[in-house]
Amino acid sequence: MDVHSDLEPIRFLVGSWQGTGRGEYPTIEPFAYHEEIAFVPGPGKPFLAYTQRTRGEDQAPMHSEAGFVRMSTGGPELVIAQPTGLVEVHDGELTDTAVEFRSTAMGATATAKAVRAVVRRIVVAGDTLSYTLDMAYTGVPLTRHLTATLQRV
Amino acid sequence: MDVHSDLEPIRFLVGSWQGTGRGEYPTIEPFAYHEEIAFVPGPGKPFLAYTQRTRGEDQAPMHSEAGFVRMSTGGPELVIAQPTGLVEVHDGELTDTAVEFRSTAMGATATAKAVRAVVRRIVVAGDTLSYTLDMAYTGVPLTRHLTATLQRV
Repeated sequence: MDVHSDLEPIRFLVGSWQGTGRGEYPTIEPFAYHEEIAFVPGPGKPFLAYTQRTRGEDQAPMHSEAGFVRMSTGGPELVIAQPTGLVEVHDGELTDTAVEFRSTAMGATATAKAVRAVVRRIVVAGDTLSYTLDMAYTGVPLTRHLTATLQRV
Repeated sequence: MDVHSDLEPIRFLVGSWQGTGRGEYPTIEPFAYHEEIAFVPGPGKPFLAYTQRTRGEDQAPMHSEAGFVRMSTGGPELVIAQPTGLVEVHDGELTDTAVEFRSTAMGATATAKAVRAVVRRIVVAGDTLSYTLDMAYTGVPLTRHLTATLQRV
């Protein structure tokens, strides 16, 4: 694969992943989901295209999102768009084969439910990718929302 | 295709499109590009997944972006993420088979070149999709940046 040399530090993300997760939040009932994630190198460019989708236990489509992990001189950066009308802008910090993205800006369309902040921690160990997502919402500080474990496929 | 009934007003966008465009801006040399665009309905959901990529006249990869067109009670909304580290949030206005998206919020990662505002006008006539993109940048007001014409494939 034509992977840009700047992507070497985040090469551990590259690939397709499948697994399961669970969601929780003070304002909702807990739920479980199936998930597919892909990180695909831009052809000869220093970024990974990121796509994700989840299905419920009954296989009905749930969430999806798309974005890019971009390698800058300061480390990885992440931008995401969601069909819920949200966008996220993150700065990332790398530690071996783990990366923590902390939102530096959030955006929402007129009718979207605005989210105040998001922290996404991704850890890859061999062929296992696990992540957590913490979210701050109106009246709720940063609180665990998602926990998932996926296998490389 | 399982297209959500709320998508009826923007069904004219759905499909895969290929064509060519030209870029210009006060700060750069004009350029030409090949382009592929897709608008794919979310399965049973009131949004379209949007992907786009361009290549130069020499076929070398240039730009790409990904996002979602979401139908709300107020009309279409658009969110986009770009590997340049930018995100865009738009409100849209529909007129027959045309839509004008005007940015309501822009976001950028720490090392991205921030864009102040974007207006994207898309017109579909039969199997032809044409668009313009105006952009406001540091020191430059809203100015034409992109003009393209694509055919349904």
